[in-house]
Amino acid sequence: MAGVTLDPFRDRYAARTHGMTASEIRALFAVANRPEVVSLAGGSPFTAALPLDSVGAMLGELVADRGPQALNYGPGQGDPRLREQICEVMALEGISASAEDVVVTVGSQQALDLVSRVFLDPGDVVLAEAPSYVGALGAFSAAQAEVVHVPMDDDGLIPAALSAALERCASRSKRVKFLYTVPNFHNPAGVSLSAPRREQILDIASAAGLLVLEDNPYGLLGFDADPVPALRSRTEDDVIYLGSFSKTFAPGFRVGWVLAPHAVREKLVLASEAQVLCPPSFSQSAVSRYLETQPWQQQIKVFRELYRERRDALLSAMAQHFPAGCSWTRPDGGFYSWVTLPPGVHSKVMQPRALAARVAYVPGTGFYADRQGGENMRLAYCFPTPDRIREGVRRLAVVIEAEVELLETFGPGSGAGTPGRTGPQAAPPDLA
Amino acid sequence: MAGVTLDPFRDRYAARTHGMTASEIRALFAVANRPEVVSLAGGSPFTAALPLDSVGAMLGELVADRGPQALNYGPGQGDPRLREQICEVMALEGISASAEDVVVTVGSQQALDLVSRVFLDPGDVVLAEAPSYVGALGAFSAAQAEVVHVPMDDDGLIPAALSAALERCASRSKRVKFLYTVPNFHNPAGVSLSAPRREQILDIASAAGLLVLEDNPYGLLGFDADPVPALRSRTEDDVIYLGSFSKTFAPGFRVGWVLAPHAVREKLVLASEAQVLCPPSFSQSAVSRYLETQPWQQQIKVFRELYRERRDALLSAMAQHFPAGCSWTRPDGGFYSWVTLPPGVHSKVMQPRALAARVAYVPGTGFYADRQGGENMRLAYCFPTPDRIREGVRRLAVVIEAEVELLETFGPGSGAGTPGRTGPQAAPPDLA
Repeated sequence: MAGVTLDPFRDRYAARTHGMTASEIRALFAVANRPEVVSLAGGSPFTAALPLDSVGAMLGELVADRGPQALNYGPGQGDPRLREQICEVMALEGISASAEDVVVTVGSQQALDLVSRVFLDPGDVVLAEAPSYVGALGAFSAAQAEVVHVPMDDDGLIPAALSAALERCASRSKRVKFLYTVPNFHNPAGVSLSAPRREQILDIASAAGLLVLEDNPYGLLGFDADPVPALRSRTEDDVIYLGSFSKTFAPGFRVGWVLAPHAVREKLVLASEAQVLCPPSFSQSAVSRYLETQPWQQQIKVFRELYRERRDALLSAMAQHFPAGCSWTRPDGGFYSWVTLPPGVHSKVMQPRALAARVAYVPGTGFYADRQGGENMRLAYCFPTPDRIREGVRRLAVVIEAEVELLETFGPGSGAGTPGRTGPQAAPPDLA
Repeated sequence: MAGVTLDPFRDRYAARTHGMTASEIRALFAVANRPEVVSLAGGSPFTAALPLDSVGAMLGELVADRGPQALNYGPGQGDPRLREQICEVMALEGISASAEDVVVTVGSQQALDLVSRVFLDPGDVVLAEAPSYVGALGAFSAAQAEVVHVPMDDDGLIPAALSAALERCASRSKRVKFLYTVPNFHNPAGVSLSAPRREQILDIASAAGLLVLEDNPYGLLGFDADPVPALRSRTEDDVIYLGSFSKTFAPGFRVGWVLAPHAVREKLVLASEAQVLCPPSFSQSAVSRYLETQPWQQQIKVFRELYRERRDALLSAMAQHFPAGCSWTRPDGGFYSWVTLPPGVHSKVMQPRALAARVAYVPGTGFYADRQGGENMRLAYCFPTPDRIREGVRRLAVVIEAEVELLETFGPGSGAGTPGRTGPQAAPPDLA
């Protein structure tokens, strides 16, 4: 964007650094956060719905009771008491685990990065849903891995497509290190992996000796039903499970975790110590005390109701305002719906016009490592109020209609088909 | 340690992972933290000396005033207000910098890791003092770099030795990516780089096109004088500066920073976003408010007095109790003294006997990438009270005397010369 500047350090960077370029999504967020813009772009939880008085009082008590410990260094693997509580949280999704095999991380992003560091050599293949979480793509890209996308539909990852992808990689003599999947309320696709497919995916993985990286930040945020048993609840051996308190409590503490087979867990701790020494003690003490003293399951219900109402606002507004040719997923939980635009409309090309109309979304191209996604956009309903969501959809509908008219009048060469280069670089924070 | 176990994932790890083995230092800390042991091992700041009532009240107010923001995601580069305050802190050491070029990190360790990631390809050389900070060695090792140690004396890094090391690397056609140095109150050596040498080191670096990584966690913790101007205060172009609030406020928040030339700063932000999305917002808000509302410079004076008294206790107890043949550095600030043992006594071999005598230290071998350091140990005076320090030194003196006697009676084959393999793997957290 900034024209040619001479970087005096250019010749000194590591090979991996030359692949790093500023995410276009990051530039988007600077604009999207302006108050006059309705942002359907960011994935920030609605932290204003937390019981702030109680949380503030709790933190004061924490410093009074355990200040010298909570303000000092802690173990590299994470606080032992918190790791036990994390096992209780995972039990809600049918997981039976030992606190010994849990590693606390600086949000799930660090877990993604640690797993990438421990497993990925340059050129190794990671299988990931099409589309896939931008932050994970950023971690895999930083490890110089090749991402091969596997198609999904309304029931999540397609088992036959997974088998086919494995075969194609084998025929290219490519080493597949793991399958990365977000089985519940997928970011960005808004769909969940059906129960029968969970068995099938695990069977395919097991037969192929494929490790599964199960990323589950939204599992407890379903709108209509109890949590579905996690993939990790069905097998201990070949699943590395990632969890987070960012969506069920607060992302500002940056507390996530990884549950891994014992041998892998040890490597993850060593990698984490080299990276951050230890996760923040104060954050961990805060989360631990929150789980201990606050009605956290009740708070999750508050979040579920809040996000359900916003999901409803988004879906009904899209049904009312979006032109023919648009379609979208109907999430049963989580933060996102994935929209397919009318044929010929390109989400990245349309983006500046949407921003001019004071509405922001994330173009679908950000969620692929291979330039797909031009016909898609991700809409997040987690942060704006229902009224703002409806207003944003109205604005967006006008922009899409104008794009369609432009295409009908001037044809596919009218500006809708020449997107700039994009890719899964580092994710901006509120995309998480 | 644990005999041969079959790791089913062994064939799937990345190349870099095979170099990761559990630090022997980590095992030490499990023992060193037992209450009956006087630990002169850990580098934990004495957080009990903080004004805990004020800090607790401040955190409650923070949640009341700015809870929804402080508990949410923040910018990948770090909070803009905190970055300005960091510039004010650095000004105390003569640094003039723009908040634009500061990146907030998850402690200085993440900064070390980010710089390693951005600059180091496998096999690249990093120059580091002999001895050097174990956490930095862990980060360089994780990047598969080769560390070449440069000797130091009581005035810090020796300029002629730096020139010689550069020549040797050039003759081996080795690419030197940067010089890593802790110029103030060195960890573990306890010495500081003299003013004339600062100029000389920078001149050598500039002539060689060598980047300098200046790690300065202890700079404001001098006992006798105002802070010395940082290397970064003398040149902007070739110095990457690392700072931390872990020693001047509290490590439990994990807030450090890196100040880098503009082009490098952008790469560091991208690498950090791929690693943790953003540093913890709550921690950053807490540190920012602490700097804004609390007498933080006064608190640093409290710490300086406290650590000075403990340093005095350590030095006078060593003078009183240690046998002939021991020598040590006399730190003017920071947390550590570096002890040289009588000839033939090996710090790693002696360690189990010291633990049996209920005193812990870190053997010097942990601070080298190349098996030096057997004749040294690091003693930390930051955490135990003066009485405990004196008791620990008395216990240690008895152990050293017994080692010397053993050597005199049975000669060098008596167990003092066959240390196990050790190395700069991941650092345990309270070594920081």
